[in-house]
Amino acid sequence: MERNDRKEVRARPQRLNRRAMLRAGLFSAGIAGAAPAIAQSSESIGANAPEWMKTPGRTFSAYGMPSKWQDKVQRVLGTQPGRPGTGSSRTPLQLLEGTITPNGLHFERHHNGVPDIDPSRHELVIHGLVKRPLAFTLEALMRYPMETHIRFIECSGNSGGYAAAQPQQTTAAGLNGLVSCSEWTGVRLAMLLEEAELNEGAKWVIAEGADAAAMSRSVPIEKCMDDAVIALYQNGEAIRPEQGYPMRLLLPGFEGNMHVKWLRRLKVTNAPVDARDETSHYTELMPNGKARQYMFLQSVKSVITRPSFGMNMKGPGFYEVSGLAWSGAGRITKVEVSVDGGRTWAVAALSEPVLSKSLTRFRLPWQWDGKPSVLLSRATDETGEVQPTRAAWTAQYAPGQFYHLNAIQSWSVDADGTVKNVYV
Amino acid sequence: MERNDRKEVRARPQRLNRRAMLRAGLFSAGIAGAAPAIAQSSESIGANAPEWMKTPGRTFSAYGMPSKWQDKVQRVLGTQPGRPGTGSSRTPLQLLEGTITPNGLHFERHHNGVPDIDPSRHELVIHGLVKRPLAFTLEALMRYPMETHIRFIECSGNSGGYAAAQPQQTTAAGLNGLVSCSEWTGVRLAMLLEEAELNEGAKWVIAEGADAAAMSRSVPIEKCMDDAVIALYQNGEAIRPEQGYPMRLLLPGFEGNMHVKWLRRLKVTNAPVDARDETSHYTELMPNGKARQYMFLQSVKSVITRPSFGMNMKGPGFYEVSGLAWSGAGRITKVEVSVDGGRTWAVAALSEPVLSKSLTRFRLPWQWDGKPSVLLSRATDETGEVQPTRAAWTAQYAPGQFYHLNAIQSWSVDADGTVKNVYV
Repeated sequence: MERNDRKEVRARPQRLNRRAMLRAGLFSAGIAGAAPAIAQSSESIGANAPEWMKTPGRTFSAYGMPSKWQDKVQRVLGTQPGRPGTGSSRTPLQLLEGTITPNGLHFERHHNGVPDIDPSRHELVIHGLVKRPLAFTLEALMRYPMETHIRFIECSGNSGGYAAAQPQQTTAAGLNGLVSCSEWTGVRLAMLLEEAELNEGAKWVIAEGADAAAMSRSVPIEKCMDDAVIALYQNGEAIRPEQGYPMRLLLPGFEGNMHVKWLRRLKVTNAPVDARDETSHYTELMPNGKARQYMFLQSVKSVITRPSFGMNMKGPGFYEVSGLAWSGAGRITKVEVSVDGGRTWAVAALSEPVLSKSLTRFRLPWQWDGKPSVLLSRATDETGEVQPTRAAWTAQYAPGQFYHLNAIQSWSVDADGTVKNVYV
Repeated sequence: MERNDRKEVRARPQRLNRRAMLRAGLFSAGIAGAAPAIAQSSESIGANAPEWMKTPGRTFSAYGMPSKWQDKVQRVLGTQPGRPGTGSSRTPLQLLEGTITPNGLHFERHHNGVPDIDPSRHELVIHGLVKRPLAFTLEALMRYPMETHIRFIECSGNSGGYAAAQPQQTTAAGLNGLVSCSEWTGVRLAMLLEEAELNEGAKWVIAEGADAAAMSRSVPIEKCMDDAVIALYQNGEAIRPEQGYPMRLLLPGFEGNMHVKWLRRLKVTNAPVDARDETSHYTELMPNGKARQYMFLQSVKSVITRPSFGMNMKGPGFYEVSGLAWSGAGRITKVEVSVDGGRTWAVAALSEPVLSKSLTRFRLPWQWDGKPSVLLSRATDETGEVQPTRAAWTAQYAPGQFYHLNAIQSWSVDADGTVKNVYV
């Protein structure tokens, strides 16, 4: 008995498919220069074996790390003198590809450092307007049904630098690195609240972390009963200390600060608590002097990661424009890219699968003619929402506002290949 | 102007949805014991704050690592004395959840250690039966269009322990840990071969690694022109040294050994090369004394990771049965689970999105009555292929064969909660 896969793999080569031919045709002129033709025989290739083929390599490792040649691929730290536990670190978006953020490079935002929590002594308490207050150890939670979703988390201060009067000359990480994307696994919060049984008047849940800031946020009960998850695993393994070990609240599509880390308490209430981080931060001052508060949703957004600042281009020819798009409201349906400052737009390819509330990679082939160019990306989500221009975004607010900034962003390319942040 | 998301999140709570109620009803008896009801006031919770809330936590880190409390979550190393660079390390499947394998825990299989390759001095050469032999530096390859896919890689020796005459009492990692799953990004190989332009008679490609074993395999040209990729990124960051830094061949669904790491050479030929690892290993001896060779496809398979050996159950009640299924032929369409040794089967839930040639997480609620039970899982893929029984799988081969073992596997649960590997 022969298996049918054997026949398949031994079949004769197919004709080159049309799509691949078209793709090749798009960039043949540019790419030909990238890979020099050679005239080496197999023998000379063998003779030229590099030294690392002539001596045994290193042994196995219990937990692997990146290559030493990648030691510049790090989070970009941002703290202030004397306050080592307060601030943020940013994902180096321009050095990454695909959509998953490796756990070691997920952005951080801490208010009083990363607590070292003994998981056997940690409890999640659900109390307040419930019939049965409950305390869950990690071991107890591990008994519950779990679910897995790929979701982004974005700080609502992300891209805030784009509100500066003059374009900041910094990398995609510096401007947009407070967004990351992981495969999260955990227990649906609705299931735990059903077990505790909500009382009449239950409208909000106050989530509190077990860090030294006791970071707290108010969450509408509707979100808690929808797709909120108590996350225990991130990209397969136990959630990292910087991400809330042993557990964090995951509120897909909502601003990062609400995904309370080191989650220890959910108090069901009839009103928001007006916690420090929902009054002093993450609010939006309007031109009329009133502030918008409880703006939870991270709206549709995109950023070009290649080319971007610091990544200067090596002459005319073919380049792939690559970037990320996301929306807290659902799936990305379209990303348009302009290379002429917004006069004309082309629709970029979206890498499948395009998932709800997840980073989506977009790509567009670009034959750069060597002339000054301005690159923009503009994303649309499944609710029909489109990124606003920077001018339209800014007009909504009083001067100096920078939270929830989701305006169209742009990079200029000079004739010498230098890439800069510009406003168009 | 108010944004519409604000109204949404402030809406009143919905009634508990029916699906969640049903789910809750499935396990209410068992779960109630897991989370003890408490009678603490908010004040007593505050007074009981753990010590890690009373002192600032640690600062930010450039590249994060797992919690020190997770130091047992490691690859399971398997080498022989005096041969530190030859053997394998296994992904601890039973300690993970979801479908993505963190890069630090991806299984390893090396033949002469992990080379330390200077990426600026590494080249990928395409030669042999082509019109234009080409040499690609990493910098050149980075200019090409890329694509991103979540794919598993599985060693064809994975689960080989299940061929032993007596059931081996070892973990899911020990039995099945030579499979891992990542989001891979790289350049479609067909594009590079089109640029080199195949000559008449091009039927195979010999792929060679830049390790000290010069690991080589023969790949049918049809696979190279289909979904093969030169992978440069793994889960967002540059591919790890143990996975082939700076580049590896990715042949979705084919046996792991063919995904040649540290890829330096692709020689286009008219016949396979009969390399060491396609003659001494990874072949299947038949009962009639003939061997099957070039059996590339990893067939449909599944494994229950919770409960599994070493994870003893804590009394009757609710448990979620959780596991992984995959097929080199495409998508998983169904996973059935039995808790009575195969007499009856229930269809498990598959975690969305179910992707082609990728690990798929399956889950099934189980109310354990405390009596001895035997758990099995049986996967079906989109080609209609179903996992065979161990007896049916074994009957195909001469004694002692263990490659490409995809038989149904089983764990027994004793009345005292002990979980063992058994054959049914």
